[in-house]
Amino acid sequence: MMDELLVLGIDAGGTSTRAVLTDLRGACRGYGVAGRGNPISAGHAAASEQVIDAAAQALHPSGASLADVSTIVPAMAGMRAFGGVDWLAPLLRARGFAGTVRFESDLLATYFSGATAIFGYALVSGTGACAIRVSDGLITATRDGLGWLLGDRGSGFWIGQAIARAAVHDLDGTGPRTGMTDRLLQRHGLARTGSMHDGRPEELEALVGRLYDRAPIELAALATIAFDEKDDVARGILAAAGEHLADTLASVLEGGGPLVVGGSVLARPGPVQEAFLARLGSAGDALELRPVADGAVGAAVLAIRASGGRVCEEVRERLTQSIGTFR
Amino acid sequence: MMDELLVLGIDAGGTSTRAVLTDLRGACRGYGVAGRGNPISAGHAAASEQVIDAAAQALHPSGASLADVSTIVPAMAGMRAFGGVDWLAPLLRARGFAGTVRFESDLLATYFSGATAIFGYALVSGTGACAIRVSDGLITATRDGLGWLLGDRGSGFWIGQAIARAAVHDLDGTGPRTGMTDRLLQRHGLARTGSMHDGRPEELEALVGRLYDRAPIELAALATIAFDEKDDVARGILAAAGEHLADTLASVLEGGGPLVVGGSVLARPGPVQEAFLARLGSAGDALELRPVADGAVGAAVLAIRASGGRVCEEVRERLTQSIGTFR
Repeated sequence: MMDELLVLGIDAGGTSTRAVLTDLRGACRGYGVAGRGNPISAGHAAASEQVIDAAAQALHPSGASLADVSTIVPAMAGMRAFGGVDWLAPLLRARGFAGTVRFESDLLATYFSGATAIFGYALVSGTGACAIRVSDGLITATRDGLGWLLGDRGSGFWIGQAIARAAVHDLDGTGPRTGMTDRLLQRHGLARTGSMHDGRPEELEALVGRLYDRAPIELAALATIAFDEKDDVARGILAAAGEHLADTLASVLEGGGPLVVGGSVLARPGPVQEAFLARLGSAGDALELRPVADGAVGAAVLAIRASGGRVCEEVRERLTQSIGTFR
Repeated sequence: MMDELLVLGIDAGGTSTRAVLTDLRGACRGYGVAGRGNPISAGHAAASEQVIDAAAQALHPSGASLADVSTIVPAMAGMRAFGGVDWLAPLLRARGFAGTVRFESDLLATYFSGATAIFGYALVSGTGACAIRVSDGLITATRDGLGWLLGDRGSGFWIGQAIARAAVHDLDGTGPRTGMTDRLLQRHGLARTGSMHDGRPEELEALVGRLYDRAPIELAALATIAFDEKDDVARGILAAAGEHLADTLASVLEGGGPLVVGGSVLARPGPVQEAFLARLGSAGDALELRPVADGAVGAAVLAIRASGGRVCEEVRERLTQSIGTFR
């Protein structure tokens, strides 16, 4: 048994999972990365395996075990729909863990990765898109985050789908020509042929077939095409994404505060950022933009809190720096 | 062996399959209906089973067998991607068929269900949406029909998705209130609760979960909610669908002619039709709208043609009437 109180913060996402072992002062003792740890996208068995793998990596440098950890905070999306802790806690206990598991929102972890103020905002645009307002340290408003079929406007998926639609309209002549079409065709081993079938280019039929062969969500991977191309159609899509993100954020704004920005879409300088700030207008002046890489720091912050620790800006900065030495 | 030349036209769709046995003068000898006959939605094994089942029903009244049939025309979407006839012809031959199989487009079958002119248009809006121009009896332009993820604007899916989006924005306060929300909640065993989680209504979270539990295409089944509700939000969605359909049709128009209209979306009087005609404006004046129930008559027309028969308006009308006696 270790002498001091250790906690584990776990930022479990649909793509990868990060675990942070820390003391209550924010000194990181270990850090681990594993695969997708959200049971919604990975299933319970695979998700718990990744969470436990990331935790084991975080425990390794200090020689600590799960028995030395007082509190574990897994931060992930949609946990209520999955019946809380039942799927993970027994597996942790079977490995010697005797403390408390407390699930938190991945969005709150993103927020506390970039801010300690108990009032502020987080806006994430990665594969999906969501905005929250934080008051008294809790989420008091959530907008969008409705998934690719119903929302996520301005997300990577939204941009990728807009690119695919622009390309098919370019090919059938109902939309403007764009260099993104050629990039998209090339990615799928195709090119413009000039030959037609039923009054429609052969390559359009082939491209549509390729795009439906994969899971819809994989359109998100196409988003980079718009950043690379830089023609008017590409800029138009990115600007529209920025405006959607501004509108989503505006729907949770109640005055100023820190705005923690997660995900890669708003992190890249260019049309998304420009349109986002232009659309926010003066409402943006009272916001302090703080980009973060992920929710690892915030998950650790939430774990310290759940264990009774106080988190001030100094602790969050110590966490950020000390985690950095392990990354 | 029967004395006269018999042909089979098969309208094989993603929901159901219709087979028509006819002579070359358009006198229907039998009619059959079976389940989904398109291998894209049903798989090869299930699709061929339904096609053969429908054909057997059509053969039954006259006591004919597949050996008596000279030509079979299965009309279905996307056949080129499936490598032509290889998946179906051997199964037909194993059942005594010694004639010719010729695949045709389901859209061309829809067209010939309503017209015999060799120049004209078909516009289908059912689960999906597509427009074609027919010249010299062949498809010379195809627009949309790009599927739910990339297009099908103004289709049943498009309307259903717009309804689901309107409802979630009503629930999170970012969109206007609409009676469609209550209808949608009710369909899923839910109601407005007034209780919140993370600054979002409980029932929104539950509804989103329910909607993602099903295949995306099933959103098409929600389209009737907009027709039933009749409030401003519902009318707005239907009007937008009508405008999309007008734009899709406009992109294939080259002067006047018959416009064969398939699918249930444009068949219902109300906002879709009104907005469709308003948007077409004077371009619509030169069109003669002809609603059809499906592509059964047209598949039979194509089968008569493929067998060397000539199809005039008289033959198409005889087909329509004589098929009617079997339905």
